[in-house]
Amino acid sequence: MLNQLAALDQVYSALADPTRRAMIERLSQGSASVSELAQPMKMSLAAVVQHLHVLTSSGVVKTKKIGRVRHCELSPDVLKRASNWLISQQQAFWKAGMREIDQLLAEESSPHKSKKGTS
Amino acid sequence: MLNQLAALDQVYSALADPTRRAMIERLSQGSASVSELAQPMKMSLAAVVQHLHVLTSSGVVKTKKIGRVRHCELSPDVLKRASNWLISQQQAFWKAGMREIDQLLAEESSPHKSKKGTS
Repeated sequence: MLNQLAALDQVYSALADPTRRAMIERLSQGSASVSELAQPMKMSLAAVVQHLHVLTSSGVVKTKKIGRVRHCELSPDVLKRASNWLISQQQAFWKAGMREIDQLLAEESSPHKSKKGTS
Repeated sequence: MLNQLAALDQVYSALADPTRRAMIERLSQGSASVSELAQPMKMSLAAVVQHLHVLTSSGVVKTKKIGRVRHCELSPDVLKRASNWLISQQQAFWKAGMREIDQLLAEESSPHKSKKGTS
């Protein structure tokens, strides 16, 4: 449980940066080498590698070396865990709202129920 | 566009903490006063208020004062924006994978097409 909490901390933290989200958007179109990933970014290769490190540490991106080239690939399962948590909060919110409306409607349809001494 | 990017930065950053996610989970069940929100947390009220400030700054939570009590409420639309971005990356990833499979199958069914000089 603690590991899962820490994992979500790292994933959301990795997502909280526009460069890293741009890298995720690129990798959602297919795998890429580190230099392909760096090419459209307006920053040094070292800065890109640092952002990539945050993405791999959180599990959002995995890399493997083929020959002399490091390839990067998205881990959709990790993104799914992050979106699932967000969706479950929205579902809980709307369900709680529906329960409140049901309760109000029930009180409306039997106005004397809660009053003492009425029959 | 820049504002939207900055907004997502703030939302994901707000989510990257277990205390703030616990506060969101509580608020997904319905609105709560600041002290109700603080009650199950093992920290000072000042620390809770600081976390709440991060949540309100990002727009994830809104507050209003009724009399002397400050009430907190979840903003599901902001959570939806954050989950939508994550879902669109997953959709793009699987669509790109499907395109790759289609391409491989097309090449498989016409093996001589790409070879020069064959007829």
